[in-house]
Amino acid sequence: MFGDPLDNSIKETVKFCPLLVILANRIADGRTMSAKKKRNISVETINQTPIESREIELVERKGIGHPDSLADGIAEAVSKALSHEYVKYCGGILHHNTDQGEVVGGETIPAYGGGKVIKPIYVLVVGRATKHFNGVDVPADAIALRAARDYLRDTLPRLDLESDVVVDVRMGVGSTDLRDVFTSCGSGVPRANDTSFGVGHAPFSETETIVKSVSDYLDDTLRREHPVFGPDVKIMGLRNSDSITLTIACAMIDRYCEGIQEYLDMKTLLAEEALQIAQKHTKRKVQVFVNTADNVDKESVYLTVTGSSAEMGDDGSVGRGNRCNGLITPGRPMSIEATSGKNPINHIGKIYNLLANQVAQECVEKVDGIDEIYLRFLSQIGRPVDYPLVASAQVLPKPGMRVDIINYDIEKIIEESLENITSITRKVINGELKTF
Amino acid sequence: MFGDPLDNSIKETVKFCPLLVILANRIADGRTMSAKKKRNISVETINQTPIESREIELVERKGIGHPDSLADGIAEAVSKALSHEYVKYCGGILHHNTDQGEVVGGETIPAYGGGKVIKPIYVLVVGRATKHFNGVDVPADAIALRAARDYLRDTLPRLDLESDVVVDVRMGVGSTDLRDVFTSCGSGVPRANDTSFGVGHAPFSETETIVKSVSDYLDDTLRREHPVFGPDVKIMGLRNSDSITLTIACAMIDRYCEGIQEYLDMKTLLAEEALQIAQKHTKRKVQVFVNTADNVDKESVYLTVTGSSAEMGDDGSVGRGNRCNGLITPGRPMSIEATSGKNPINHIGKIYNLLANQVAQECVEKVDGIDEIYLRFLSQIGRPVDYPLVASAQVLPKPGMRVDIINYDIEKIIEESLENITSITRKVINGELKTF
Amino acid sequence: MFGDPLDNSIKETVKFCPLLVILANRIADGRTMSAKKKRNISVETINQTPIESREIELVERKGIGHPDSLADGIAEAVSKALSHEYVKYCGGILHHNTDQGEVVGGETIPAYGGGKVIKPIYVLVVGRATKHFNGVDVPADAIALRAARDYLRDTLPRLDLESDVVVDVRMGVGSTDLRDVFTSCGSGVPRANDTSFGVGHAPFSETETIVKSVSDYLDDTLRREHPVFGPDVKIMGLRNSDSITLTIACAMIDRYCEGIQEYLDMKTLLAEEALQIAQKHTKRKVQVFVNTADNVDKESVYLTVTGSSAEMGDDGSVGRGNRCNGLITPGRPMSIEATSGKNPINHIGKIYNLLANQVAQECVEKVDGIDEIYLRFLSQIGRPVDYPLVASAQVLPKPGMRVDIINYDIEKIIEESLENITSITRKVINGELKTF
Amino acid sequence: MFGDPLDNSIKETVKFCPLLVILANRIADGRTMSAKKKRNISVETINQTPIESREIELVERKGIGHPDSLADGIAEAVSKALSHEYVKYCGGILHHNTDQGEVVGGETIPAYGGGKVIKPIYVLVVGRATKHFNGVDVPADAIALRAARDYLRDTLPRLDLESDVVVDVRMGVGSTDLRDVFTSCGSGVPRANDTSFGVGHAPFSETETIVKSVSDYLDDTLRREHPVFGPDVKIMGLRNSDSITLTIACAMIDRYCEGIQEYLDMKTLLAEEALQIAQKHTKRKVQVFVNTADNVDKESVYLTVTGSSAEMGDDGSVGRGNRCNGLITPGRPMSIEATSGKNPINHIGKIYNLLANQVAQECVEKVDGIDEIYLRFLSQIGRPVDYPLVASAQVLPKPGMRVDIINYDIEKIIEESLENITSITRKVINGELKTF
Repeated sequence: MFGDPLDNSIKETVKFCPLLVILANRIADGRTMSAKKKRNISVETINQTPIESREIELVERKGIGHPDSLADGIAEAVSKALSHEYVKYCGGILHHNTDQGEVVGGETIPAYGGGKVIKPIYVLVVGRATKHFNGVDVPADAIALRAARDYLRDTLPRLDLESDVVVDVRMGVGSTDLRDVFTSCGSGVPRANDTSFGVGHAPFSETETIVKSVSDYLDDTLRREHPVFGPDVKIMGLRNSDSITLTIACAMIDRYCEGIQEYLDMKTLLAEEALQIAQKHTKRKVQVFVNTADNVDKESVYLTVTGSSAEMGDDGSVGRGNRCNGLITPGRPMSIEATSGKNPINHIGKIYNLLANQVAQECVEKVDGIDEIYLRFLSQIGRPVDYPLVASAQVLPKPGMRVDIINYDIEKIIEESLENITSITRKVINGELKTF
Repeated sequence: MFGDPLDNSIKETVKFCPLLVILANRIADGRTMSAKKKRNISVETINQTPIESREIELVERKGIGHPDSLADGIAEAVSKALSHEYVKYCGGILHHNTDQGEVVGGETIPAYGGGKVIKPIYVLVVGRATKHFNGVDVPADAIALRAARDYLRDTLPRLDLESDVVVDVRMGVGSTDLRDVFTSCGSGVPRANDTSFGVGHAPFSETETIVKSVSDYLDDTLRREHPVFGPDVKIMGLRNSDSITLTIACAMIDRYCEGIQEYLDMKTLLAEEALQIAQKHTKRKVQVFVNTADNVDKESVYLTVTGSSAEMGDDGSVGRGNRCNGLITPGRPMSIEATSGKNPINHIGKIYNLLANQVAQECVEKVDGIDEIYLRFLSQIGRPVDYPLVASAQVLPKPGMRVDIINYDIEKIIEESLENITSITRKVINGELKTF
Repeated sequence: MFGDPLDNSIKETVKFCPLLVILANRIADGRTMSAKKKRNISVETINQTPIESREIELVERKGIGHPDSLADGIAEAVSKALSHEYVKYCGGILHHNTDQGEVVGGETIPAYGGGKVIKPIYVLVVGRATKHFNGVDVPADAIALRAARDYLRDTLPRLDLESDVVVDVRMGVGSTDLRDVFTSCGSGVPRANDTSFGVGHAPFSETETIVKSVSDYLDDTLRREHPVFGPDVKIMGLRNSDSITLTIACAMIDRYCEGIQEYLDMKTLLAEEALQIAQKHTKRKVQVFVNTADNVDKESVYLTVTGSSAEMGDDGSVGRGNRCNGLITPGRPMSIEATSGKNPINHIGKIYNLLANQVAQECVEKVDGIDEIYLRFLSQIGRPVDYPLVASAQVLPKPGMRVDIINYDIEKIIEESLENITSITRKVINGELKTF
Repeated sequence: MFGDPLDNSIKETVKFCPLLVILANRIADGRTMSAKKKRNISVETINQTPIESREIELVERKGIGHPDSLADGIAEAVSKALSHEYVKYCGGILHHNTDQGEVVGGETIPAYGGGKVIKPIYVLVVGRATKHFNGVDVPADAIALRAARDYLRDTLPRLDLESDVVVDVRMGVGSTDLRDVFTSCGSGVPRANDTSFGVGHAPFSETETIVKSVSDYLDDTLRREHPVFGPDVKIMGLRNSDSITLTIACAMIDRYCEGIQEYLDMKTLLAEEALQIAQKHTKRKVQVFVNTADNVDKESVYLTVTGSSAEMGDDGSVGRGNRCNGLITPGRPMSIEATSGKNPINHIGKIYNLLANQVAQECVEKVDGIDEIYLRFLSQIGRPVDYPLVASAQVLPKPGMRVDIINYDIEKIIEESLENITSITRKVINGELKTF
């Protein structure tokens, strides 16, 4: 049941608050409905050059400190904070979308040993939220402000929130019609807020795995030992036939770096560590370049005060960076929709993208014989979210596999995922799913 | 030559201003260079299910009045205005990027015959621009403000710029390093500002053609006769095997609509017209739905004061809408980069995306035997823009075609396009290329 | 009756809208009340050195284009526009206060013959307004935006509103308690919004008259012939015994000035014209200095693009400039309250200041024998505005006058003014009273 | 000497930084100059009804948590922080003026025991500052942001800076001409930035003393024991002949108040304590009213979450509250200029107002026989600040005193104060002088 993973206070409120009741009843309803109505699921075998056999493959990841990722992270933090507050006070998640917002770059003067922020970064939190519900006033703006600041503090520890950033909020209330759609789901199932779609694929290619792994290693391990590596790390992976090139742009933090020699040493270290990680995932030839725009003679290197290029005039927006699988993969089908910040109840741009990735992974894990799988879920505005207009899987089977069995299993996984679609909501607000 | 299509004053300034000299000398340089150095061009034949043979295809277009498109259009208008001013006063296009910015939705009360704007839309123009060059002060903020307002006036004729919108500007100056890269190109060729890529494909599928054609017909013809159809038209095309469904969300303008009956009549008209356009491009079965979220009983319909959902709390950002071919095509390779607002000299996210689309189209027009072609250009920061790290074409040949000949012709087209890459810049600032 | 000077539509709405009824019934009620209750009016004779006999007298006026005056003018324009809208749609003036707001200076590069605005002025319109009343939505933000822009256009004709200024709006709704006070006046009389006071004096001293007259002559006559004299003219009058010095700082407009010689000629002209005006009002010796901070050798003179120092970084706020008699007179009692922008129904800081000046003038005009008179009205929050806690007049009689008769006449004028206090409201919204 | 009270690092920098040299040499220069040039000092005896003998006297004070006082305090905190930074890095105080800025009210829902902030307060810090000097970049915006936030934290301990307030900064650089005036003072004395004046009086009347004392007692003593009394306390004192009425509006803090009864008890307590303080300073009859706008039946009382009415939509601006003696006294000469936030070197609106008050007090303390004294200092733009155009004292002597002796002593005090005028600067940046 939806409420289970949440705290007990919800069980209390369930009796009084209509929305949670709706959500709590959802699966039962869903089951009933599925007995009556067949879902439109299409599984098709495709015939195409597998990704690993193509000549050229490009993969990019913007690290958590990149301005676009900061915008994504703030948007999602705000949505999560609102969701928790709505559940706490209103017994269910109310309408909101904070999938917008802008990080406007500041100005700094980095210096070995520690420079200074001259002009603060400006962050504009934008979106819509329900501010009054059933007699309860929800302090949506104050919640958003706190969530954004907390997120920045966690993500950029070297950013002094007292002097280096202005966080501003301009949140409206949603359009009446959309809220109608949302609250009129008395029949038990959230309805799609839009005619839109989500896409996902699995498994990751070697290059995708490498780019993601190097980024994770930096975030989880390397930065702890070497805080000089700022959180704004952009990794571009290019596979040209059997040769993989990683180009890493890493914002070095000045206070942890005594001079140009240490800077250069750190670049070398990063290149070496990245190479090692990469080689765990491939037998192809790998080359790593770090901060290629540096001009050491002119002492023009990628040194920062805060570890993010947002400090130096680089702007960022929600939805302009990684897709919800953490990567940008122009060789794969992608959704343009921002996953971060959208409400996790009925916003297709969020739910179906997360679902598509989750289902693709599950298929690869549970079903033998899949070389590649591409999932697409298409909604129609007003339809129950568990009954997409179409759920489509495109499968590239391994040579010699029984396609009919594969397809049957896949269809079953899709069917079950749709029945259980509200688990996406739950995982999102519990922070179990990343959105960028 | 670059300067030709521009006014004569440039020829004057060419003598004094280094940047234009650079640009003017570019092709000659390029030729010399290409004699010396071979470009890394890869043309590969791929084997995949052609788009028309796949079960499911999704295509979306956000019309010019959609909040995301407004953000794109403003960003590009600002870049164009800055480029013209730079050329006029400094003899060349100086560093700038205005590929950010936010449209924060307002609040209106639509009413048949004419409603009112309650809370103005808020537009934040963000970016970086060169404000001082060679002793000349460039009024970048004032130029940006005017360009943004002019664009809004042209695009949303029913938006009263005196009361319905606040346009704010927070433009910084670029990071020093990036400007180094840009102005140090004394050797004659702009250098890539980033390690990034552009993608494009051709030809359009039936569904793609239909979605684009319906949108164009609305903008070019139908709205002139029936101003009730606002510029914010979102078209979602779904092809499910041989059945195509168009879902159109069109913001109707209240002052041109007397009542619910006229509103319904207009929906019917739009559906009929869209169907006719669609049928010109396909023999498949087509269905059209308009404003499916309407609830006529509750009188909750898609009526607006200004013709854009930005009036009612819908926010928009640069780069969140259409790709530079005018569509969102999750089944095709796509770039996540915003094309609009980037500087048209050396910003890969703009130039290579526009180039990839242009080359793909040119290949299909000039080379027989191509079923589908996908172009990718990858830069490395600091490399001359006409020497991408790799230019890659993936070709799906028509059955029975001589692949070697096709590939030779394609390579030649790519080669020539790269030699002539600055024509992209020229076309952009002359408004010959659309970016969304 | 209050409603008379307004349009007929009000008489219609009077039947349905409680507030206008209240206002319409006001005088009758007032009369009834005054029959029952005596007003607390104190008229006292004071013994002090008359202003003209003091050694030193300082008088200042900030012209209509001064940043503080711009802020005042915008605030009052917004209040007036809201008042008209409230009357039109709701039958009475609803609660609002827009007596705040900031003009943040821009950046320009003036040049003889015409310079340019580099960075737009930023205007923040702040305040509170009723946005919903009796089922009617009042587009307060849109009204405020338009009113502010219209005011700027009228006042600074050389300011290009498309590129030279950003007008932003952050209007809230009033505090609940204050609105209670305002709307609960069912007994027929608006009640004071605050414990506050207003002050005024009459007649003007010679120096006061001169400063005001020179400013008026510039605005009404001289600028029409010589548009080079921008609207931002600050006049400081110092009387040192029998010698009067006028120091005028006048923002010259560059496009109307060919070069330094014309600039200097214009300074001379202004000094001569001001001298002539001054000499009409005094027999004392008068000296005039214009733009004393100019350094002609360094070509550093007071040249502007728009005619206001707001273009060059000078900020302005509501209530920081002239008092409601158009002057700043540190030798006279003054109110610190901003008169501009406050609601003209029950805001003491507006009504009592305007009233005090009007009554002082009326006394001087109608009662013989007054050398100087100072009026003070003190409210207590919640009391009817026509029953101040105390209305106090301090009179400096001419030598040999019958004080008792003077005082009787003055008391009568005060009494009648209070009975008729709503005429202040009417005059304000009809634009008959200046507030700065 | 100027540098003495500051830290040793200044003595170091003195050698290298021209401005401090200027300042350090100032007194010597001043002395030399005064040997050559006589100051224009006028002391005149006036004949007027002493303040205590007038029928009506009004005195007001806005407590430190009042929105206008918050704006003042922030402006002054920013100026102080900039001054310290300038001294530290540049060896002298550079040009700046931060005497503008706006506090835009938020929205709260107070509740006994603790309510919540719904919409954050918005604070706009505005002004001009020198950002580059002699090769040093001064992080003026970051300094301003931190100073404003620190000030808010200290002043409103119940305001959560993470969620309840947005502090934004829009600081420009000053106009070139003004900076000329400021830095061209190579001859050793800061020159007046403007033609302006400062005024002050002494001693305080009974009512003035009472209003100030009650406010101080609240801030220094009562609030420590009873944190329920928020820092936003507005005190209005009215003396009507021999009867004094204090009307106190005190923002009670909800978390320190259990219910309506405690609220009412606290009102009573405050009234009693204020009465006791008042009676220490007068033998006149005193009445105290607290929160007169309360409507207990409707449970509409002056309860707040943060202790400032800024939380509920009340806006505030710099310079709209107390004069630099801490009071608003419409019966006394007042300056309209904001003292807070102006640069303490050459801004007349700050220095001369502080000086006038200081000199007035000193005269009363050191010279026998003064009943009332009023000081006025008038500058002319470009003149050395220690040579005002005129320094004027108006004295109301006690009956029977030798006026010539009094006047001689006063002139001497004025003379010495002007010689030592830079001590004002030093005291301001050391926080020894209050500005509101």
